[in-house]
Amino acid sequence: MFPVEVASMEDSGSWERPGRFVAAEAGYEECEWVIAGAPLEATVSYRAGTRWGPARIREASHSLETYSPELDRDLDELAICDLGDVVLPLGNVGQSLARIEAALRRPVRDGKRFLVLGGEHLVTLAAVNAALARYPDLVVVQFDAHTDLRDEYLGEPYSHATVMRRVLDLVGPGRVWQLGVRSGLREEFALAREATRAFPDVTHGARVLVEELAGPLRGIPLYLTLDVDVLDPAFAPGTGTPEPGGIGFVELHQALLGLARAGARVVAADIVETAPPLDPSGRTEIVAAKLAREILLGFGRGEEV
Amino acid sequence: MFPVEVASMEDSGSWERPGRFVAAEAGYEECEWVIAGAPLEATVSYRAGTRWGPARIREASHSLETYSPELDRDLDELAICDLGDVVLPLGNVGQSLARIEAALRRPVRDGKRFLVLGGEHLVTLAAVNAALARYPDLVVVQFDAHTDLRDEYLGEPYSHATVMRRVLDLVGPGRVWQLGVRSGLREEFALAREATRAFPDVTHGARVLVEELAGPLRGIPLYLTLDVDVLDPAFAPGTGTPEPGGIGFVELHQALLGLARAGARVVAADIVETAPPLDPSGRTEIVAAKLAREILLGFGRGEEV
Amino acid sequence: MFPVEVASMEDSGSWERPGRFVAAEAGYEECEWVIAGAPLEATVSYRAGTRWGPARIREASHSLETYSPELDRDLDELAICDLGDVVLPLGNVGQSLARIEAALRRPVRDGKRFLVLGGEHLVTLAAVNAALARYPDLVVVQFDAHTDLRDEYLGEPYSHATVMRRVLDLVGPGRVWQLGVRSGLREEFALAREATRAFPDVTHGARVLVEELAGPLRGIPLYLTLDVDVLDPAFAPGTGTPEPGGIGFVELHQALLGLARAGARVVAADIVETAPPLDPSGRTEIVAAKLAREILLGFGRGEEV
Amino acid sequence: MFPVEVASMEDSGSWERPGRFVAAEAGYEECEWVIAGAPLEATVSYRAGTRWGPARIREASHSLETYSPELDRDLDELAICDLGDVVLPLGNVGQSLARIEAALRRPVRDGKRFLVLGGEHLVTLAAVNAALARYPDLVVVQFDAHTDLRDEYLGEPYSHATVMRRVLDLVGPGRVWQLGVRSGLREEFALAREATRAFPDVTHGARVLVEELAGPLRGIPLYLTLDVDVLDPAFAPGTGTPEPGGIGFVELHQALLGLARAGARVVAADIVETAPPLDPSGRTEIVAAKLAREILLGFGRGEEV
Amino acid sequence: MFPVEVASMEDSGSWERPGRFVAAEAGYEECEWVIAGAPLEATVSYRAGTRWGPARIREASHSLETYSPELDRDLDELAICDLGDVVLPLGNVGQSLARIEAALRRPVRDGKRFLVLGGEHLVTLAAVNAALARYPDLVVVQFDAHTDLRDEYLGEPYSHATVMRRVLDLVGPGRVWQLGVRSGLREEFALAREATRAFPDVTHGARVLVEELAGPLRGIPLYLTLDVDVLDPAFAPGTGTPEPGGIGFVELHQALLGLARAGARVVAADIVETAPPLDPSGRTEIVAAKLAREILLGFGRGEEV
Amino acid sequence: MFPVEVASMEDSGSWERPGRFVAAEAGYEECEWVIAGAPLEATVSYRAGTRWGPARIREASHSLETYSPELDRDLDELAICDLGDVVLPLGNVGQSLARIEAALRRPVRDGKRFLVLGGEHLVTLAAVNAALARYPDLVVVQFDAHTDLRDEYLGEPYSHATVMRRVLDLVGPGRVWQLGVRSGLREEFALAREATRAFPDVTHGARVLVEELAGPLRGIPLYLTLDVDVLDPAFAPGTGTPEPGGIGFVELHQALLGLARAGARVVAADIVETAPPLDPSGRTEIVAAKLAREILLGFGRGEEV
Repeated sequence: MFPVEVASMEDSGSWERPGRFVAAEAGYEECEWVIAGAPLEATVSYRAGTRWGPARIREASHSLETYSPELDRDLDELAICDLGDVVLPLGNVGQSLARIEAALRRPVRDGKRFLVLGGEHLVTLAAVNAALARYPDLVVVQFDAHTDLRDEYLGEPYSHATVMRRVLDLVGPGRVWQLGVRSGLREEFALAREATRAFPDVTHGARVLVEELAGPLRGIPLYLTLDVDVLDPAFAPGTGTPEPGGIGFVELHQALLGLARAGARVVAADIVETAPPLDPSGRTEIVAAKLAREILLGFGRGEEV
Repeated sequence: MFPVEVASMEDSGSWERPGRFVAAEAGYEECEWVIAGAPLEATVSYRAGTRWGPARIREASHSLETYSPELDRDLDELAICDLGDVVLPLGNVGQSLARIEAALRRPVRDGKRFLVLGGEHLVTLAAVNAALARYPDLVVVQFDAHTDLRDEYLGEPYSHATVMRRVLDLVGPGRVWQLGVRSGLREEFALAREATRAFPDVTHGARVLVEELAGPLRGIPLYLTLDVDVLDPAFAPGTGTPEPGGIGFVELHQALLGLARAGARVVAADIVETAPPLDPSGRTEIVAAKLAREILLGFGRGEEV
Repeated sequence: MFPVEVASMEDSGSWERPGRFVAAEAGYEECEWVIAGAPLEATVSYRAGTRWGPARIREASHSLETYSPELDRDLDELAICDLGDVVLPLGNVGQSLARIEAALRRPVRDGKRFLVLGGEHLVTLAAVNAALARYPDLVVVQFDAHTDLRDEYLGEPYSHATVMRRVLDLVGPGRVWQLGVRSGLREEFALAREATRAFPDVTHGARVLVEELAGPLRGIPLYLTLDVDVLDPAFAPGTGTPEPGGIGFVELHQALLGLARAGARVVAADIVETAPPLDPSGRTEIVAAKLAREILLGFGRGEEV
Repeated sequence: MFPVEVASMEDSGSWERPGRFVAAEAGYEECEWVIAGAPLEATVSYRAGTRWGPARIREASHSLETYSPELDRDLDELAICDLGDVVLPLGNVGQSLARIEAALRRPVRDGKRFLVLGGEHLVTLAAVNAALARYPDLVVVQFDAHTDLRDEYLGEPYSHATVMRRVLDLVGPGRVWQLGVRSGLREEFALAREATRAFPDVTHGARVLVEELAGPLRGIPLYLTLDVDVLDPAFAPGTGTPEPGGIGFVELHQALLGLARAGARVVAADIVETAPPLDPSGRTEIVAAKLAREILLGFGRGEEV
Repeated sequence: MFPVEVASMEDSGSWERPGRFVAAEAGYEECEWVIAGAPLEATVSYRAGTRWGPARIREASHSLETYSPELDRDLDELAICDLGDVVLPLGNVGQSLARIEAALRRPVRDGKRFLVLGGEHLVTLAAVNAALARYPDLVVVQFDAHTDLRDEYLGEPYSHATVMRRVLDLVGPGRVWQLGVRSGLREEFALAREATRAFPDVTHGARVLVEELAGPLRGIPLYLTLDVDVLDPAFAPGTGTPEPGGIGFVELHQALLGLARAGARVVAADIVETAPPLDPSGRTEIVAAKLAREILLGFGRGEEV
Repeated sequence: MFPVEVASMEDSGSWERPGRFVAAEAGYEECEWVIAGAPLEATVSYRAGTRWGPARIREASHSLETYSPELDRDLDELAICDLGDVVLPLGNVGQSLARIEAALRRPVRDGKRFLVLGGEHLVTLAAVNAALARYPDLVVVQFDAHTDLRDEYLGEPYSHATVMRRVLDLVGPGRVWQLGVRSGLREEFALAREATRAFPDVTHGARVLVEELAGPLRGIPLYLTLDVDVLDPAFAPGTGTPEPGGIGFVELHQALLGLARAGARVVAADIVETAPPLDPSGRTEIVAAKLAREILLGFGRGEEV
């Protein structure tokens, strides 16, 4: 186990340990938020790199301030525990999903919020499954360039292109909100019209959601899944299947701030599809880290979790 | 020749052949659109890489869906033939232009539309020449950051900095529309004021063009030349002489959609100056591929070709 | 010394010498503007590369035209002298600042404007000090993502995170304008509210400044410090601590054009925190070079210097 | 199907089609060698990129001459058919292996030699299986930095770390030669001592093999599997798990030339673990292409196939 | 502090924590070796990046096996404690050195061996100082391309170009062995001839050292400082001032194995000047990690520490 | 012209001017060696980047010491004048060669040695032509991976693949030595056997040349052309058509040192085909700079030039 003895070295103040999200210094018992890395990369169709998402997002988080001027809150005021990464068996998709779900089950049972750092989008399926155990009326809010509503992809039912179809199977029609989608098959768009709440315009979608949070969705537990490719590739080039025509960071940030100010009850979230090797400038992982910070700060002060 | 025997292997369905634009599976005879690569790189002044444009744009096209939600059309509904790349003699600009023009002459004669994937902007001169043989009243619509109206560049009459001056010589005053230009010599801007229809603001220029399509330009054959540097370098960093201050992908996309919905009769087009090695994120080639898809879908259903 | 004899070679016209900003061909005595490189990189906290800023910005300047269509001016109409880079002793921050200040003192004394190409933001402290000797009523206009108002950073009083606090110490409360700031400690934002003119919205800030230029600030000498991270990382990824959520190039350009048209009396300026190795597309150095050109052209025609 | 009509265009000579290995212009029926891409990337443990191996090796092959001065042979003298890539279902290892094996079965049945371009090392298992159907006495010669003899890796029996254990299961003790191995578990080295012919020194191993080719192995069909990481990372940096301490290209080349000159009867081969995105210089794919050329030329003139 | 509570989660086996050297799982008290990161980058003259050395070397260590076939030992048999990185105040060289020395003092006092992961070469000065407190008769063995014997560099006495001069001041003439040096001023080579044991040929130098270990140096405590630029840039391109003409990995490895087999009593060591951002292939950090493994295994089983 | 006034600024010592080869501080009149950049890139067949050769080699030269321990000489002891780059008209091969030749004619006439920094190999043709005017009995020594003896390449007589055939036309059979060649057409190797002195083994070739320097070639003026691809791509990855199987830096260095010690009378030289953008580690330009230093030092002290 970890060398706790170090703490007794008189010069212990002069050491820093890499490998955790900034300010995630709480122990598991007292924490409000759990951070979990899920470096899954098993069904990626075009370009790889998501396995390095959790490590680089954590690293990038240290280049940011812990204080958000828009929310006027600081990570130091929250109790956050970074559990590390779920161990994944390579080349076995089913086992990988099972392990991610299993690893998240206890934090959910213990009433903690969790934030998953992906990893490819398929991790959302495992994470939603874990959350449903406690929150059967969960509503999923998806920020994404792609519908991800295929029934299968090259014959496989579980992939980053089918993940939201599987999630839809789990939570049921009308309980998935899709914001920013601009790519898919004709069939997927047809299904979206029937079974999801789909808004190509993120700002519009967020406004409608805020309105419903004051009405039909009041108090409903939300799951936020944030595929970084909802942003235009100019803002998040480090992702496997970038789709030109997306929004800028400011619009996405405003949508999240809007939800936070409306008191949305986000009980779990993920940020997926960050593929650091595809972005030598390193800004995609910084974007993901800043989104993570705003989610932690924006939804971390609920009356009840 | 190509191994047609493969088709008779019982497991032929399990092979895929790289090297063609997505869904470009028609034979030459039945096709409506011809795709031709022109990997010219001979007069580039600053940074090289355009020779890899055609290969990488084709590759990137496979990361996109064949369906365009904005146009509600699918490439599968079109007959597209990818002819490959024109063979170019290195270090000989005149010969290279002659070969590109010669290679495009037959598709033009056969009444097919063509889309050239560049290569540096100079390829437009050869392609316009080929198109003029059938469409003497051709109007050229140029999306570009640079006027490209120099009379010569370092003493040479043919270069990526003089190409539109040569095109202007061919089609005559008033028959070149320039959208998005923000860089040039004082003399070039003066010439543009006299001899071209120049609109620094792409959205404004496209709106005026759409209006004229309903009037003086009704039925006129259009040639579309799209220099990716019309986009801000944030959206298309993989280009030789990026010029800050350009538009975003959404604006350019909207301009094209506007022309398509106005029924513009685009008989030929090119996408030039994509220099993949300068963009390790690979998004410039994806941008070019998506623009190619929208051009094919948007202008592929004309009453007459 | 430099081989002036070359000028007498009959074929001297066929040589070009690398290493100077485009069109900076004036001698020191007759010049209006002095360009000075300050490749400081001593207190950078996250990612390095600013030492290559001056060299790459100069190189990139040659990919641009010398003519600005917005200002309708050309660098050829100005007398600009590129002095090269200040020699900096590695690993000695104090000495480095002293040498930068000393090197700039003579151009200031001689009534010339100067433009410093950084290097990290700390160079601004030395440059402002040099300018204050002649312009004691100097007002500093800072375009930046970060407040840079920490009193110390990891125990050190001089760093890129504290530089504007030190500048504020020099020029006094109310004489620093901060445009575009979106990151800092809670304490820094509190200080900004008290002691600086702070505008998260660059366009708004520039408009207020233009108004005051017609009133209380009429004729006041301005120092412009331009940290490229005021731009969103999409537009300037080559910088050490990119902060998502910034403005686009067009907005920044418009703000500068607004100041130029309002007749702002900019007596000195710097462009800092360009870190070329972090941006393989090379567009950040082109952005910096274009901003440099617009500053030289926009503020180079003052009635008095 | 493919546009054979193009052949009838009078200017067809001026087009080139990308996407095939250099000089691989034979049809299937008349060919001696089949080239097959297997872009598998499913169990990679550290860094990804092998999926781009086949495409980039083909591209790189065109930068080489078709003539080998060491062998004094030219690819133009061989009949080679490039079948393209096997279509692989993402995220399903078993299915992927089955499809690769199925795709190779017919060329084997038709008495053709095949060369597989990987993809990760696991493809060797499928390819050896296909070859065994015709050559039950096959001996496998492995050039590799790693033993790849684990029985399982993170619980999975099929991975790039266990592939040679599975191959050993198929062909039996003593029928796998391992050259260049320098990394593995203590257990793997113990197994190698018992069940394989293991030579850390490639040159030594090749010499012993050549000797046995004149004796006990005379006429025996060989399968050559070439993991590019047998080379020192200096020579082949573009690979997932580079292991310092390998040989140079010249030594590996000499070993292959030795086998060729000894008349080794290589009936099938693969080149695996080339991960182009990890090597921006692009030399790893050129190394792989040159090795492919030498294998085709060196073992392509057998008395019987 | 660290969340020890996690250990009590029933599914704790499914988590892994990034940020430590492979197999460095011992607590401080029981450990034989201490690993300490010293990400110093303060006096680098050409290209930066050493600050990322410790993090990337740790990461790369997980791509290697823990077993060394040459030494037939496994890291699992050693008790290694990774203390993390020394916290360094940016821009203050003196303070940085003082903190590194202070941080290493306790492990030395407690009789533990330490391995420092740099960071620039200057860290060696602090580390040697820490070791001298217990081992006043320390002999320093330097593998390096550069003499590093300047008395000052640009006026500064402490820099990566003067570090071995300062070390020589500390340990005295004849107590520094320099292996592989091929670059320096004429004056530095002159000083080396007088005051150090200098061997341009690493293999030769190591052999002489092994001989003296059986004689005059028997039992003497050694400090090993390994600048990765002793390797040819082909083998370790990720370093600030690569010097062509160096040795290959195999030669360096053999030299270390020779010392290990001769029973050299290495009480402390460092691996410095790894600059990961300069090597996109990532092999330099793997080279450094493998050298670290071999040092830990080769010198970790002394009779006395 | 250049600001010579700067010299009179009291603090002029604190400025450095970028853009010249290290220690090339002599004026033209007094210099022994002239350095000329020739950034030609017009006939490159595979990957581009040679245009950046001169600029990056100069920059890299400053990372090296000016002292060579092997030659025990220092650049400070030589009078070297860096003339800058020849201005080249883009896209016009003939004009480019004419301008390079014209630019070198005067230094040749004035009895100065010159060193050309390329640019693609075709520059050698212009440079040899310039040298022949004074040294009609010139012998050309070529270090290269490729024969470059094609008569034409894609129909063009002037290209980097035909350059040595054109040189052979100029100097005549038997007056070209080719060292290190390992790639070419069968016809080229046949021609080499007849008309050149060809040595695949560089060390062997250099030894034979040294022998003849003491005999038939005594006093003969030599032209050295050094294509960096003679090195294995491991040592010089930044080149357009890397050919695996080359020598290491040490062997090439030794060959040059051998010629220098044998008193070879090198009257002109070039280093070509360095393509910096293809080598993000930057070591190829450092290799080229070190070779340049050794050529300047090794052949710079002739009795007569």
